[in-house]
Amino acid sequence: MTPPPNKPEYGPSGRKLIYEEDGTLCRSCNEYTDFQFVTGKALKAPRPAVASAVPATTAPGALAAVSSDDLIPGSRTYVKVPPPDVNQLGRSSWTMLHATAAKYPKDSPTDQQKQDMTKFLTLFSHVYPCTWCAKDFEKYIRENAPKVDNREQLGRWMCEAHNHVNKKLGKPKFNCNFWEKRWVSGWDEES
Amino acid sequence: MTPPPNKPEYGPSGRKLIYEEDGTLCRSCNEYTDFQFVTGKALKAPRPAVASAVPATTAPGALAAVSSDDLIPGSRTYVKVPPPDVNQLGRSSWTMLHATAAKYPKDSPTDQQKQDMTKFLTLFSHVYPCTWCAKDFEKYIRENAPKVDNREQLGRWMCEAHNHVNKKLGKPKFNCNFWEKRWVSGWDEES
Repeated sequence: MTPPPNKPEYGPSGRKLIYEEDGTLCRSCNEYTDFQFVTGKALKAPRPAVASAVPATTAPGALAAVSSDDLIPGSRTYVKVPPPDVNQLGRSSWTMLHATAAKYPKDSPTDQQKQDMTKFLTLFSHVYPCTWCAKDFEKYIRENAPKVDNREQLGRWMCEAHNHVNKKLGKPKFNCNFWEKRWVSGWDEES
Repeated sequence: MTPPPNKPEYGPSGRKLIYEEDGTLCRSCNEYTDFQFVTGKALKAPRPAVASAVPATTAPGALAAVSSDDLIPGSRTYVKVPPPDVNQLGRSSWTMLHATAAKYPKDSPTDQQKQDMTKFLTLFSHVYPCTWCAKDFEKYIRENAPKVDNREQLGRWMCEAHNHVNKKLGKPKFNCNFWEKRWVSGWDEES
């Protein structure tokens, strides 16, 4: 989408800014810092969603105390957390997706389970709120059909799909030989 | 599921422990502390997934430095993060779900969009890796069909579905009149 008149095309992050059809900036498609740059609004940093989650003693400057202005009117626990930006949304969604692969049947999923997983991933690419990410994922699925014959296949497929995005964003590649330790079994921590 | 012989039924969190059919503890259905209690393994705390995300200077004690033992073999950036527990998975998934509602068409979604969203939520309840959470969400959807006629409807439906879970977990209720500020527009921060 071309930026509306008098609106910039790129943000301080260097990323192209994504606007909605009504000319406002897309919350779930841009970074917090870029959003702040365009809107001139001082975005509060993401904070624990529940005030009671703030530890009583914290390292100096690590977490500010919660004032009543920070709380949602009428609530003694929920703080005013801004909507997620594209990065927070990405991290959350990959956590959900990889964990879903990690719990997929190890061997011999039923035909129904295979269909459900394939359809779930396809629909995810339709409803995902970062529109450009969704389009990219949809294309990836079209060109690389999800491998749903067993957990190992699906876990690796997800890892490779994630690496496809990592590459686009200039992030390092994750070694997919470690997908199972990262998402299923853990790292053999000693007692 | 009944616990295997010589395995406890409840964890230190007070929650009933959920075991897999093979007798191991379900990672995505239990809390980190309960997992540690049963397995005797010293779980490393969740950390940034990428070492370079650790700020160079941090408040004293706020974040430990990353040692080479913490890194995934062969990687200079990815640290050994344990698989998500039931709480991290829940937070991540609600972020994705609410943001998805926040980006649903404001008015007049097409029949295809309505069908896609309903089917997506139903499939989510089939593939979600915390099995008892998934069953509960499936039942909730069966008894409270997703409202998909417009964004406001869906956003409130999601908020109420989340409050249903909050209640089960003894957490405070979120005032759904604020769903749009929390997930779409933000809190009118001043510049």
